[in-house]
Amino acid sequence: MRIVVLAGGIGGARFLRGLKAAAPDADITVIGNTGDDIHLFGLKVCPDLDTVMYTLGGGINEEQGWGRTDETFQVKDELKAYGVGPDWFGLGDRDFATHIVRTQMLGAGYPLSAVTEALCERWRPGVRLLPMTDDRVETHVAVDLDGERRAVHFQEYWVRLRASVDALAVVPVGAEQSKPAPGVLEALAEADVVLFPPSNPVVSIGTILAVPGVREAIAEAGVPVVGLSPIVGGAPVRGMADKMLSAIGVETTAAAVAEHYGSGLLDGWLVDGADTAAVAEVEAAGIRCRAVPLMMTDVEATAAMAREALALAEEVRA
Amino acid sequence: MRIVVLAGGIGGARFLRGLKAAAPDADITVIGNTGDDIHLFGLKVCPDLDTVMYTLGGGINEEQGWGRTDETFQVKDELKAYGVGPDWFGLGDRDFATHIVRTQMLGAGYPLSAVTEALCERWRPGVRLLPMTDDRVETHVAVDLDGERRAVHFQEYWVRLRASVDALAVVPVGAEQSKPAPGVLEALAEADVVLFPPSNPVVSIGTILAVPGVREAIAEAGVPVVGLSPIVGGAPVRGMADKMLSAIGVETTAAAVAEHYGSGLLDGWLVDGADTAAVAEVEAAGIRCRAVPLMMTDVEATAAMAREALALAEEVRA
Repeated sequence: MRIVVLAGGIGGARFLRGLKAAAPDADITVIGNTGDDIHLFGLKVCPDLDTVMYTLGGGINEEQGWGRTDETFQVKDELKAYGVGPDWFGLGDRDFATHIVRTQMLGAGYPLSAVTEALCERWRPGVRLLPMTDDRVETHVAVDLDGERRAVHFQEYWVRLRASVDALAVVPVGAEQSKPAPGVLEALAEADVVLFPPSNPVVSIGTILAVPGVREAIAEAGVPVVGLSPIVGGAPVRGMADKMLSAIGVETTAAAVAEHYGSGLLDGWLVDGADTAAVAEVEAAGIRCRAVPLMMTDVEATAAMAREALALAEEVRA
Repeated sequence: MRIVVLAGGIGGARFLRGLKAAAPDADITVIGNTGDDIHLFGLKVCPDLDTVMYTLGGGINEEQGWGRTDETFQVKDELKAYGVGPDWFGLGDRDFATHIVRTQMLGAGYPLSAVTEALCERWRPGVRLLPMTDDRVETHVAVDLDGERRAVHFQEYWVRLRASVDALAVVPVGAEQSKPAPGVLEALAEADVVLFPPSNPVVSIGTILAVPGVREAIAEAGVPVVGLSPIVGGAPVRGMADKMLSAIGVETTAAAVAEHYGSGLLDGWLVDGADTAAVAEVEAAGIRCRAVPLMMTDVEATAAMAREALALAEEVRA
């Protein structure tokens, strides 16, 4: 079975670990969000791709969900001693090596997709990891800071400001001019199932869908498209998806997110047991819906979620 | 008193520490060798400039004479795990930060001289440190490897091959087209004394002198030019200067190095007590010469050497 997964960072990576356990023989292609990529200290940092790579490759800091295990921060401390910022983005020494290799390869002319493939030769994540695009797309968030409207990089909003102010708008700058990376459309065309993990519907999956051709390729694939709600009981399970949903005028409910994707894109939707009441609403919108436990507390619980998603896909197919 | 010093790496840096102790009120400008600069992992590494900066700024690894104190090697280990080389150049995590800052500034369009000044704002070396040029100059060494003549980067010869094969030729590639960095010619024009520390006469001081205009500016300054022999008792005090001298057809003796610089450039020359016999030969070549202890065993011994050099300069002037 060929499964294509659209993934953001922590939530996507953890879901993928469960999916691999649930479907060990499946051929899994991950289309990774690159809208929160950022240039820091002249280096290209791809937080979501790296989180997937480190998580599936066994190098992740399990407790925080991002960054490397057994990490040290000598480079960061030295940069601070030089007065070179920003200092709010926590790059560790081991992590720096990844960005150094990536930046060197990009500088030598390799596209991000080839660089990602090369990095994965070390990590062997057990999935094919593709950036959504080789072009530069950068998610910006419009905010009011001291009465002035400003657009800040998504990482600045998320990490520096900790989403403490309202997001007034979210714009994937460059997305309209971007092209899907090599392999993205092909993987979708050959997919048997497309899954949306419980990633952020706006700045993770929404950004991937903003790459021209991706949404169409999913629709044209003619295979079940099943998503898992990142909203449980009216709040995001992790992160600050509520801020992002408000910015695009979507309620922070499991049903509203499904309706935001829409029945033109989504065939099935899993909500948590806490949201059983949402099932009827989602089904009324033309999307098959089931309520199942959606807490990724460990790999086994996550694998069970993945099995439910695949079962729902088969139901849709039949 | 305005002193200009042409400096390589370890020897130059240690001499400068002694000079600062010997002449605490002097205005010291250092023209640093950049011929052994190297690009590693997409980063610009300037070993000699950094050795001077770290040594005078209190950040040097005292035992090895280069690199940072309290150093760790996480980035290097990770690069090796990615299979990205070379692995023979020992870059530590703290040191990496310097190269990251430098590379970022160069990428932003600042010349190396401005970058060096910015880095020195942190290190406050107590001297004005200028790269010899803002242009790219790279010292290559011709060697026979497995019967084949090849040109290797100086660092590859020095660090990877440990000068284990003969150097057939030494070429500062790009030197002929280079221009002295801003401030270099001005510092020489305003100097009261010019000093050559016991640095490598070929790949350190020789490379600086290969930048068009530098040799002429020293001659035209009309001030005493005094050097200290890096050769004691027929062997280099440190490093492998003998290999470099052989490559350019100069004997590894204190006298031969003085004559290689020549009386047109050099006014005074200090040899070690072990080379008292060389004094007459050097003086016969038109260069005033004294035999004094030349072992930089500690700062006080080095300061004594600097005082002897300055005293010889005053003798020349008078």
